[in-house]
Amino acid sequence: MPLAMTPQCEVLIDGMHSASLPVHDRGLLYGDGVFRTLRVVAGKPLWWDEQVAKLTEDCARLGLLAPDPETWLADLEHISPSLTDGVLKLLVTRGSGPRGYQLPPAGSVRRLMYFDATTLQARPRAGLRMRVCALRLGWQPRLAGIKHLNRLENVLARAEWNSTEFDEGVLLDQAERVVSGVMSNIFVWRHDQLLTPRIDRCGVAGVARARLMRLAKAHGVDVQETDLSLQAVFDADEVMLTNSVTGLRRVACLETKHWLDPVISPRLAEWLDA
Amino acid sequence: MPLAMTPQCEVLIDGMHSASLPVHDRGLLYGDGVFRTLRVVAGKPLWWDEQVAKLTEDCARLGLLAPDPETWLADLEHISPSLTDGVLKLLVTRGSGPRGYQLPPAGSVRRLMYFDATTLQARPRAGLRMRVCALRLGWQPRLAGIKHLNRLENVLARAEWNSTEFDEGVLLDQAERVVSGVMSNIFVWRHDQLLTPRIDRCGVAGVARARLMRLAKAHGVDVQETDLSLQAVFDADEVMLTNSVTGLRRVACLETKHWLDPVISPRLAEWLDA
Repeated sequence: MPLAMTPQCEVLIDGMHSASLPVHDRGLLYGDGVFRTLRVVAGKPLWWDEQVAKLTEDCARLGLLAPDPETWLADLEHISPSLTDGVLKLLVTRGSGPRGYQLPPAGSVRRLMYFDATTLQARPRAGLRMRVCALRLGWQPRLAGIKHLNRLENVLARAEWNSTEFDEGVLLDQAERVVSGVMSNIFVWRHDQLLTPRIDRCGVAGVARARLMRLAKAHGVDVQETDLSLQAVFDADEVMLTNSVTGLRRVACLETKHWLDPVISPRLAEWLDA
Repeated sequence: MPLAMTPQCEVLIDGMHSASLPVHDRGLLYGDGVFRTLRVVAGKPLWWDEQVAKLTEDCARLGLLAPDPETWLADLEHISPSLTDGVLKLLVTRGSGPRGYQLPPAGSVRRLMYFDATTLQARPRAGLRMRVCALRLGWQPRLAGIKHLNRLENVLARAEWNSTEFDEGVLLDQAERVVSGVMSNIFVWRHDQLLTPRIDRCGVAGVARARLMRLAKAHGVDVQETDLSLQAVFDADEVMLTNSVTGLRRVACLETKHWLDPVISPRLAEWLDA
């Protein structure tokens, strides 16, 4: 990822500055929670309303009582990344509870806000270099689309390469369908259509993905959520990845296949960032 | 679960008494870690060597550098649940690292030991009451068997019932095969055979399960890991659940099916607890 880590990180837990979390938090014990990662430019978090709305929706999917948008806004004011660039993370867990999977009393949630003052590198002009991951995502419709804290599949997939030779990996599911990148959603442009995999069996339905689909449609583009084979990606006129922090980036190569020039990506990136 | 929660809980993080964990721990952020839960009787953790061995094996599956058995022993001495009954939890995470799924430098792990002084109720004589869960476990062979921190499927399955009418739920996979209970492994006794589901696509391969299989075989029982249908469970002469904290317990009913008397469970429980 084109991010430099700096030690400048602030964290609020339930609105209070804190660097540590109770050890009985169900986020740790079971991955029982959800999160969002946002880009902050000059103190302003991008796509804030959409991010908070998606977090609220993900909470509902897991039966978590989502914090109010006003509460997140108050946290944002408190953490005050004034005029700073960086990455903001919003995270909700089901709080602490007695031992065992059984849900603690309703309304028991804990919210965390992280702000990392990091400098984002300029978008790489040459495009991203991708590989195909060996790991196949399992199907779990009950969790599909949600950015929850059970991310071991992503960790294992990302651990498949350690070199800087590749920027991202393509994730397939157990039926060999393309789902996404390890850290991004994927779009292909082919025959004047914008295609992206359905996220109803596995994968995360990112905010940048939803935003791009909406905006491209509004500009008259034929956008389809569909089953996508790896061959369809290789055959694409252009391949692009979306991520809330890094925006839209085009893919320069996937394994031995190369795409030399941008086709539609500059226009889509402009719409997405508008 | 037949456990009463008490506030008497001690926690060591990397050998130091602590009640809180750094907020950048990957156990929280991604569920990037593994754990074990053990029963402690009069200050002695049951099946200690097998538990530490299984934890070490699970660490290896995820590329985590497992703490030495000697380190766990030192922690145990330090937390010193002398002559107390309760539940011990060992937990290993990939520690803190820079933002993103990419693995931090090798060897970065954090270990936690929890001791809860709880009183275990006597084993319910009447047997357990079970239901069939609606949630279907997804297949992920890379994670199958491991007691990792990605436990949202168990949380969602356990959330399906809130009454005390049921003690446990049967989990099936996406091919409608029986995998386990939500908090236990499952065994059925039928035609003088002891059958238990294979745990190679999903589910947790518990220490009590491995121990029971080994000990039953040593006593001449025909033990098979196999594909198990829900019908095969209904048709069983006896159904039993195993769990490291609560041991072996027989099932009295599953939905509308009842098993009135123990058949083989008293003998198996004796072997398991020996």
